[in-house]
Amino acid sequence: MKKIAILGSTGSIGTQTLEIVRENDDIKVISLAAGSNIKLLEQQIREFMPKAVAVWDEEAAAILRSNIADLSVKVYAGMEGLIAISVMDEVEMLVAAIVGMIGIKPTIAAIEAGKQIALANKETLVTAGHIIMPLAKKHNVSILPVDSEHSAIYQSLNGENYDKIEKILLTASGGPFRGKSYEELSRMTVNDALKHPNWSMGRKITIDSATLVNKGLEVIEAKWLFGVDLDRIQVVVHPQSIIHSMVQYVDGAIIAELGMPDMKLPIQYAIYYPERQFLSAKRVDFFELQQLTFEKPDEKTFKGLQLAYTAAAAGGSMTTVYNAANEKAVSLFLNQAIGFLEIPEIIEEAMNKHTVLASPTVEQILRVEAETYEFIESRWMI
Amino acid sequence: MKKIAILGSTGSIGTQTLEIVRENDDIKVISLAAGSNIKLLEQQIREFMPKAVAVWDEEAAAILRSNIADLSVKVYAGMEGLIAISVMDEVEMLVAAIVGMIGIKPTIAAIEAGKQIALANKETLVTAGHIIMPLAKKHNVSILPVDSEHSAIYQSLNGENYDKIEKILLTASGGPFRGKSYEELSRMTVNDALKHPNWSMGRKITIDSATLVNKGLEVIEAKWLFGVDLDRIQVVVHPQSIIHSMVQYVDGAIIAELGMPDMKLPIQYAIYYPERQFLSAKRVDFFELQQLTFEKPDEKTFKGLQLAYTAAAAGGSMTTVYNAANEKAVSLFLNQAIGFLEIPEIIEEAMNKHTVLASPTVEQILRVEAETYEFIESRWMI
Repeated sequence: MKKIAILGSTGSIGTQTLEIVRENDDIKVISLAAGSNIKLLEQQIREFMPKAVAVWDEEAAAILRSNIADLSVKVYAGMEGLIAISVMDEVEMLVAAIVGMIGIKPTIAAIEAGKQIALANKETLVTAGHIIMPLAKKHNVSILPVDSEHSAIYQSLNGENYDKIEKILLTASGGPFRGKSYEELSRMTVNDALKHPNWSMGRKITIDSATLVNKGLEVIEAKWLFGVDLDRIQVVVHPQSIIHSMVQYVDGAIIAELGMPDMKLPIQYAIYYPERQFLSAKRVDFFELQQLTFEKPDEKTFKGLQLAYTAAAAGGSMTTVYNAANEKAVSLFLNQAIGFLEIPEIIEEAMNKHTVLASPTVEQILRVEAETYEFIESRWMI
Repeated sequence: MKKIAILGSTGSIGTQTLEIVRENDDIKVISLAAGSNIKLLEQQIREFMPKAVAVWDEEAAAILRSNIADLSVKVYAGMEGLIAISVMDEVEMLVAAIVGMIGIKPTIAAIEAGKQIALANKETLVTAGHIIMPLAKKHNVSILPVDSEHSAIYQSLNGENYDKIEKILLTASGGPFRGKSYEELSRMTVNDALKHPNWSMGRKITIDSATLVNKGLEVIEAKWLFGVDLDRIQVVVHPQSIIHSMVQYVDGAIIAELGMPDMKLPIQYAIYYPERQFLSAKRVDFFELQQLTFEKPDEKTFKGLQLAYTAAAAGGSMTTVYNAANEKAVSLFLNQAIGFLEIPEIIEEAMNKHTVLASPTVEQILRVEAETYEFIESRWMI
């Protein structure tokens, strides 16, 4: 029996994780946490009968408590709540799928409590990789990536020696604006950017895919997850998103993981690792597919990617600035306060004015995030 | 130190194996065997200083003995010789790269002596898979495939559980005649067939690539090597030969091995398995490559592939007939005694007249081979 806690159970990864639980009777949900969607959370509680849940919003927690008064399920609130449900004795694995910086502290607590981590939260490694990875090693905890690219790399590394990695080939769909010129990008609207060719995802991540910032964040994550230097992580644009990423070894052999775009696969892989379990998803049909294509990312036009390399090379708190500035800029773009091309410009400005802290603590990371937000708000939200 | 014996040291795989020995100072050649090319064998002896060698041809062995009288290298001859150099105490791994049925007995002897097997000889598994695989299991010997496709599958299975294989996707270049109609094939000459698009290989295997018999033999080998039923081995035509083969698992994930066409990679992989070692070969450049394409094999026009499935389904001695009939037919084609389209016809006729022995011994296999040769000689070599 796999005993899991899900942080972010009402989000995209959270609900898909629960679909996997539904299809496999050897996974038991011990606890759930959500932001504020207590309607869906209540349904999940009644279906999966966890021992405890947590809600980020205190008021929502109070309402939920009264709504499920008929059940003996403990309802926690706030950061303490997220941490409490992540470290419960029975929990063996934390599925860290909550979006944003609030995922970091519960993840750290879970690692310290020796829980395996299925990691879907991007911010954790992007901002605190230097804390997370040594901590996981110390507590003998595996960080199992739950996104299609890093899971593909993880799968391609299965049975292999990390010392023999020559290069990581991180594939990218290129997003909805692939092939467009700088001039064309200046005219792109929110609606244009939200049309992702292969994956149906949230709004923020879809914009990140259009700017290539999403790929930039993945480069930083890959650096931490696989201990590979930046100059050995290469982004390859592959519009069909069938090859989910690849690892090239010192003998020139490349191991790749391919599949249809479906997040359930990396989620299930992380939960059952190192075992594979049947998944009734669509299979790749090479005869229907006919071709896979590859191209160089246009880093001049899509500056989001190169900025990630710059941020990761600067290290320390700079990746927090990269991430926070992007978050704020995307929100400005979604509110039509800025144009598409201003997203990387804002990130760059925020990075330029930041003085790096070489090895920031979680508190320092959160402060850098707040400062980055403030800087952008003071400049662009008048 | 890796201590190896090479059966077929003067052939294509043999010489490439020695190139790898030359580049790595932790491989020691204990013994070598060749057919009759004693000139090259003598050079190899003087360079690699094995303890013993064997020559298939008795007369050639006698000449070699006198030519290397200055060295204290033992020279054996005939089948006894091949076996003797394969089972020497010091030998840890036999690289079985000799072409044809003469590879079977030394390979069996080596397995019985507990030597690991790097297997490049196709006939061994095609005709005697039912003997080899259980024997290897009994003696705790690994059969490490030395060809690009099976090595790719082996690499894609690294760290995985064989029980979780859903399908093996065996890639095929499609050969020089891919896309041609039956009518066009009737006019194809020996020279046309010898132009292989991606791999530079011997004449016989190049014709086998044009008829898809080579792929058929590989399907049979894959069945034995990986214990997978025929209906779960699918041939995918992939003209660029960059994806060397793939394994699809029960969760829908496909693991693939990619690389430039270079036999040194699978040879080296087998020798160092499970470790990888640096190899200074050309790397795949996806930006230069731009695309990988896939198509269904045209099994109606290229009957060689379907006949392999038929032979493997019949099992027992039928695969020996398939292989032997093809050998003879290719030799007739190379001598311009028959047309290209008669190759599969001859194989089919030989198969049709054969009564299957369910689990033939090596002696029975050799007899079936001889009978198949005789049948074809009596019909086509007047």
